[in-house]
Amino acid sequence: MARKIRMGMIGGGPGAFIGEVHRKAARLDGQIELVAGAFSIIPEESTQMGKELGIDPKRAYLTAEDMLKGELALPADQRVDFVAICTPNFTHFPLARDFAEAGFHIMCEKPMTISLEEAKQLEEVVKRKGTVFGLMHAYTAYPMVKLARDLVAKGELGTIRKVMVEYAQEWLSQPVERKGNMQASWREDPKKSGAGCLGDIGTHAANLAEYITGAQIQEVLGEVSTFVEGRPIDDDINVLLHFNKGVRGTLQACQVAVGEGNDLAIWVYGDKASIEWHQQDPNYLYFRPYSSPEQLMVRGSAYIAQKSPAAARASRIPAGHPEGYIEAFANHYVNFAEQIRAKIEGKKPDAFALDLPSITEGVRGMAFIDAVLRSGRTGNVWVKMPV
Amino acid sequence: MARKIRMGMIGGGPGAFIGEVHRKAARLDGQIELVAGAFSIIPEESTQMGKELGIDPKRAYLTAEDMLKGELALPADQRVDFVAICTPNFTHFPLARDFAEAGFHIMCEKPMTISLEEAKQLEEVVKRKGTVFGLMHAYTAYPMVKLARDLVAKGELGTIRKVMVEYAQEWLSQPVERKGNMQASWREDPKKSGAGCLGDIGTHAANLAEYITGAQIQEVLGEVSTFVEGRPIDDDINVLLHFNKGVRGTLQACQVAVGEGNDLAIWVYGDKASIEWHQQDPNYLYFRPYSSPEQLMVRGSAYIAQKSPAAARASRIPAGHPEGYIEAFANHYVNFAEQIRAKIEGKKPDAFALDLPSITEGVRGMAFIDAVLRSGRTGNVWVKMPV
Amino acid sequence: MARKIRMGMIGGGPGAFIGEVHRKAARLDGQIELVAGAFSIIPEESTQMGKELGIDPKRAYLTAEDMLKGELALPADQRVDFVAICTPNFTHFPLARDFAEAGFHIMCEKPMTISLEEAKQLEEVVKRKGTVFGLMHAYTAYPMVKLARDLVAKGELGTIRKVMVEYAQEWLSQPVERKGNMQASWREDPKKSGAGCLGDIGTHAANLAEYITGAQIQEVLGEVSTFVEGRPIDDDINVLLHFNKGVRGTLQACQVAVGEGNDLAIWVYGDKASIEWHQQDPNYLYFRPYSSPEQLMVRGSAYIAQKSPAAARASRIPAGHPEGYIEAFANHYVNFAEQIRAKIEGKKPDAFALDLPSITEGVRGMAFIDAVLRSGRTGNVWVKMPV
Amino acid sequence: MARKIRMGMIGGGPGAFIGEVHRKAARLDGQIELVAGAFSIIPEESTQMGKELGIDPKRAYLTAEDMLKGELALPADQRVDFVAICTPNFTHFPLARDFAEAGFHIMCEKPMTISLEEAKQLEEVVKRKGTVFGLMHAYTAYPMVKLARDLVAKGELGTIRKVMVEYAQEWLSQPVERKGNMQASWREDPKKSGAGCLGDIGTHAANLAEYITGAQIQEVLGEVSTFVEGRPIDDDINVLLHFNKGVRGTLQACQVAVGEGNDLAIWVYGDKASIEWHQQDPNYLYFRPYSSPEQLMVRGSAYIAQKSPAAARASRIPAGHPEGYIEAFANHYVNFAEQIRAKIEGKKPDAFALDLPSITEGVRGMAFIDAVLRSGRTGNVWVKMPV
Repeated sequence: MARKIRMGMIGGGPGAFIGEVHRKAARLDGQIELVAGAFSIIPEESTQMGKELGIDPKRAYLTAEDMLKGELALPADQRVDFVAICTPNFTHFPLARDFAEAGFHIMCEKPMTISLEEAKQLEEVVKRKGTVFGLMHAYTAYPMVKLARDLVAKGELGTIRKVMVEYAQEWLSQPVERKGNMQASWREDPKKSGAGCLGDIGTHAANLAEYITGAQIQEVLGEVSTFVEGRPIDDDINVLLHFNKGVRGTLQACQVAVGEGNDLAIWVYGDKASIEWHQQDPNYLYFRPYSSPEQLMVRGSAYIAQKSPAAARASRIPAGHPEGYIEAFANHYVNFAEQIRAKIEGKKPDAFALDLPSITEGVRGMAFIDAVLRSGRTGNVWVKMPV
Repeated sequence: MARKIRMGMIGGGPGAFIGEVHRKAARLDGQIELVAGAFSIIPEESTQMGKELGIDPKRAYLTAEDMLKGELALPADQRVDFVAICTPNFTHFPLARDFAEAGFHIMCEKPMTISLEEAKQLEEVVKRKGTVFGLMHAYTAYPMVKLARDLVAKGELGTIRKVMVEYAQEWLSQPVERKGNMQASWREDPKKSGAGCLGDIGTHAANLAEYITGAQIQEVLGEVSTFVEGRPIDDDINVLLHFNKGVRGTLQACQVAVGEGNDLAIWVYGDKASIEWHQQDPNYLYFRPYSSPEQLMVRGSAYIAQKSPAAARASRIPAGHPEGYIEAFANHYVNFAEQIRAKIEGKKPDAFALDLPSITEGVRGMAFIDAVLRSGRTGNVWVKMPV
Repeated sequence: MARKIRMGMIGGGPGAFIGEVHRKAARLDGQIELVAGAFSIIPEESTQMGKELGIDPKRAYLTAEDMLKGELALPADQRVDFVAICTPNFTHFPLARDFAEAGFHIMCEKPMTISLEEAKQLEEVVKRKGTVFGLMHAYTAYPMVKLARDLVAKGELGTIRKVMVEYAQEWLSQPVERKGNMQASWREDPKKSGAGCLGDIGTHAANLAEYITGAQIQEVLGEVSTFVEGRPIDDDINVLLHFNKGVRGTLQACQVAVGEGNDLAIWVYGDKASIEWHQQDPNYLYFRPYSSPEQLMVRGSAYIAQKSPAAARASRIPAGHPEGYIEAFANHYVNFAEQIRAKIEGKKPDAFALDLPSITEGVRGMAFIDAVLRSGRTGNVWVKMPV
Repeated sequence: MARKIRMGMIGGGPGAFIGEVHRKAARLDGQIELVAGAFSIIPEESTQMGKELGIDPKRAYLTAEDMLKGELALPADQRVDFVAICTPNFTHFPLARDFAEAGFHIMCEKPMTISLEEAKQLEEVVKRKGTVFGLMHAYTAYPMVKLARDLVAKGELGTIRKVMVEYAQEWLSQPVERKGNMQASWREDPKKSGAGCLGDIGTHAANLAEYITGAQIQEVLGEVSTFVEGRPIDDDINVLLHFNKGVRGTLQACQVAVGEGNDLAIWVYGDKASIEWHQQDPNYLYFRPYSSPEQLMVRGSAYIAQKSPAAARASRIPAGHPEGYIEAFANHYVNFAEQIRAKIEGKKPDAFALDLPSITEGVRGMAFIDAVLRSGRTGNVWVKMPV
């Protein structure tokens, strides 16, 4: 084995959800080792987390600034290769910018920034510096999503006509942000999150629809709603979509959907077949050819490899042995690590490794947020996405 | 038993789908007998169908006009009590008007007419004549839909926030109307159907959403699409809905959804619980209380009766013995027959019997079609429904 | 239309479950009319039921004996063509024998009798008299069961290896027979029912397995259990099965399965494919070819007709419009009525009409009960079925 | 953090399935590091695998014997704490015995040995040496299985009456062992595997049933079948089970079940409620109280913690974010590592850590195999399990 890729983390302190997922995902395939972090803005928590993780105490930094300096002070062959940014949205931009400028690669949580303007600035940095940039739209890392994309690309669905994508969660159906839920409190503060439901889960849905269909959203008509009284930000969005290639669609995201866990689902209708996929049961893809029995495709089955080498490669264990969310996450880390390794070795990463949401998807996500918010504020009119 | 209610039918000739469903549904519970009909505009087919059905040959009429005259010429105690109108949309209005004016009760297929104007005229006749009028929005006759309505009405979901209703079919995904499909050919002719997908299945979805929530659609923003080339009418609609009581919603109907049979489904989200129901698996209702295990309610179960007497009454057999579409249809016929019987006996029908879509729902359906079409034609702006 | 087939009913009084299902099923397709009955052993209930059903009061008999005499006294062209026997098990034999001897055709509830001896005697009568005999194993009337049978028969599954059939109900998990449940009280009395769970639902499962596979059970090893204390009859059975053609299987029936409605399900494994069917969701058949995506076949779909004309014929409405238990029941009545009609017209019924469980299945069912009980009583040894 | 637990692996060479799962599972939670291995009996493969895994080349041993010697030659603070045995069944016993005798802890694949005699010998060693012994019955590590066990233990199901456990796989439905499938070839050789389907998956099913119910199998009546011609070992078993506490059950395992992936499922019926769980959809547990709506419990939900602290603890991410097979595996590794750590620190492991299949389950599994084989060979009679 070539050496492991060295990871630093910003965020992911005690009690964090997504930071811990990043760590587990990064560990799973044995290619990455976590060697540094600024885990919390509370100093003792960062120290404590570093200890729990078995990190050299000197590299359990108290702030991201310290970490930047500290890592730069190390010899290049000890320095982290990349930082994973797992902090509230408003910090993504300055952190990503500064670490990218300093020559580190970046794995960034979504939404990428809190404004389209920031996103474009970051894009400039990343392109200029040649940063390997991963954006954690985890859902496109599921094998059956890759299969869906490849079935579309190979024409198995015929001409795509319509896409429905829906994302429903219960967890913000009560004003938990005012009741001590740390993950909710910054999300429901527009200054810290940029957008509510739209940014938190709506962008996942838009990204998933574009990924699978290979079509691009060109204009949106969105209704942006807040159901929980006193909440200063959206908790429900309904959007009509016009893609290129004549595709039409609808996108709904709702964080006040009582009874739903993390129900992201997509339907793509072509003139020859349709597909349906549900994140909560990610090992299955329903494929429905015209006037024929529905086919249930199962991750890890032998017949997947011919239809989608990417789906087969993103799968670790045979059909019937379910994989989940952490494995999906880890798939993105595999590709991200391969890109970094290629960079180190001065090679070009292969097409599999490049199958990773990146700065482009990040800018598109912010443009989507921007367009839907503008549509919502102007009486639900059609708003064009930047090309 | 009091005498059976006497039924006449217009439409439902050889090969008809919905006319035959009306006949089976009317027979199922033994309260109605079919004694007359004008089954087809092809004379020999009407005669033949009358023969097959064991109807007095004199009452297997060649035209609806003949039937009207013929029945009026009979003694009142032999005459049909009502006519079931199972013909293409554009004939509903003149037939319903004429038979209602002549004193017959009416069971009418949906959409009720081909214009809002016609609908209002028919409403005037029906109200003036005291006609018992049933409109075959069959889906509200399912027991679990009645349970859903009653759960909402009793506050089990709390304050309703959002409704999603979706209706997807495959059958018009190819231009079958140009390939000899009789049921498609008139439906895809705007002069005969009034609206396409919007009228054929969109109105079912709207009716279902209003029935379950008890809220009324006040304004719509609709996109009206045609995917099959050369088709002069819509085959897909996406609609944003504003109900009264602060409820928001989305409605999608699509007849080019390759791979879907007759997939009408609804989700209603309150602040305390949500429900989900699928027409294709109608014996189940999912009830999801906040932060609690999802409950699967099954038609015919003992616990249904307390929650919804109407659901229990609309159910014929115990849980685990599935009921289907014909039974739902028959439920509307039961209530319709009871209303007629009450009229005959000079009594007031009870609340159960009145649980039947009628002229009011028919007018609302046409107003919905009208509003969505106007929204679609004017760049997808909000259009108010008449109060 | 030829005249309707005239039905008489024994049993099916107020509050009856299965008698009412027989009536609805017989009505559904408009080929049969109920004209006489001895509905209850309580005279006023029989009279009352006759009235509710709109039957000539003279033909709402107080006893089955009266009915036999009364009908024989009528002119042949008014007399019932057949009687439907919907009474407790112990009365099936004398009723069926007497009416068959008198020249009436019989539709009989299962299990056919309460002993194998009775079953053989009845077989003798039925064969001698040329009685059209239908045994209401309703589950083989479902279209998707017919499709399953035809897929097996056409070799789509390859050589059949193993069958699993399971039937689970909750309703006898408490001693409801001692708490006034009328349907339970005679069932749990061995003198009236012959066998408990084994006879009530076990025979359905065995019949279904033989019907679909086309193989015959040759020997059984059964465990016969009673879980509810003080119950003098079995409420759970587990059986190992040896069929001819090298097929092995297991059969489980349980009426103390808390939480289950009427969960009859079957899996058939061949060396090329397998199938799975659930009575509670009867419109679906899962077909699983080796190393390929599972196919979901849906009743009423266009592709069914080529695979199974019998399934297509047993279906009334298109895919997506669910059919249920009453429709299955009615399918048996359709075939039964056609057999009677053929008899009346002196023709041979076609193969479709002959697809009806009859006296042979009745004798096999009793032999199955007999063999399992003997196995259970002798320490769970293998017991041969009579050939 | 205390230091990581040091792992050595035997088996898990290139192309191995289960060895790789062990590695990923051991990595996931960051408590264990793989530092040594004898990965393959082909020397260059072991070397190569060590390289890929980033292991010190000196510790990528060519044989298990070398590894034993090599590790013992290292200072205690570098030596592996335990070995994971991921080799064909017939090697489990000598390997486990020798490493346990040398003072190493053991994580062993199942079935534990190839005979009951070996199992007992191993038990003696393990007990004498105080070895921390984990047996990889991975399925009891799923959170919802732990929830099921705790619901039973708390009496939520009432008195348990019946258990059904089924395990169906397709992969041996063809004679793949003669077509180069490496994983099949040793499994279908009785000398190398001890038992076929019975040992490979039947023991999982038996273990799962005992774990959830807390009852013990006391006698078995088994049919042991081979469907694939020429195969010298069983590929299908059907077993009747008598547990203590009056519980009865059935167990079926089949590796010729065309169309099934890895379909392990269990139903437990009590007199108050029942549960159902499917390994292929492991995040869900169906709980069915008597005469009440079925409840769907979802891993990661807030309400789980009160019902089952063990289920909550075995879960990494919130409801709606699915976990899978590797996570289950990792749960056993978490407990195993905690037991080792307790041993190192001279503490008693807590009850959570002890929730791990161990030598006792291993002996029981071999006793189960032994009893079923004997029953199968003697005409399917009841055979008692040793107490």
